[in-house]
Amino acid sequence: MANHEALDDIFVALADPTRRDVIRRLGRGPTSVGELARPFPITLPSFMKHVRTLEASGLIRTSKSGRVRTCTLNRERLALVDDWLAEQRRAWEAATDRLEQLVTDLEETP
Amino acid sequence: MANHEALDDIFVALADPTRRDVIRRLGRGPTSVGELARPFPITLPSFMKHVRTLEASGLIRTSKSGRVRTCTLNRERLALVDDWLAEQRRAWEAATDRLEQLVTDLEETP
Repeated sequence: MANHEALDDIFVALADPTRRDVIRRLGRGPTSVGELARPFPITLPSFMKHVRTLEASGLIRTSKSGRVRTCTLNRERLALVDDWLAEQRRAWEAATDRLEQLVTDLEETP
Repeated sequence: MANHEALDDIFVALADPTRRDVIRRLGRGPTSVGELARPFPITLPSFMKHVRTLEASGLIRTSKSGRVRTCTLNRERLALVDDWLAEQRRAWEAATDRLEQLVTDLEETP
């Protein structure tokens, strides 16, 4: 259940192009909020809402030093999406295997 | 941009445990709405909203035969999430390579 809630928050966080761009940018390394916000044609308070959504999902961490808040990507959290996708693939493969077995059984039936 | 919008809809669709369960169930093969709805303690109209959100995202397709509506998973659509994750990983790896190069350059500086 905890994992379910984590995935809810993660997918909500990823369902926005600005937030996905932030994730991509942070892949290059920790970055200050000011620098992250620069390319986006929105106000800093609007941008901060995106940062908070990302932080709430656990996808990023932020820390403040003086007046500068720096964001860091939490790759382990993004890996939960990989895990979920892998789980789906395993289910499909199991279904395909069962279907193949069924076809084999039918072919072998005299 | 089109891909951005597709990802928005896909991540919104995945940000709900009922919809993720439907995706998992459909991994085993096409299933009628009635059968899909059975395990969930919600009304059929509420369940249909989830089905429509999934359909709008392109993650599932539905077709009606007589009174039965059948849902089918569209794996190619789910693969867009894999593609997005792979893109992020490539960016991290490129960043790591640049960092390693920087360290090597520094070490080689007399």
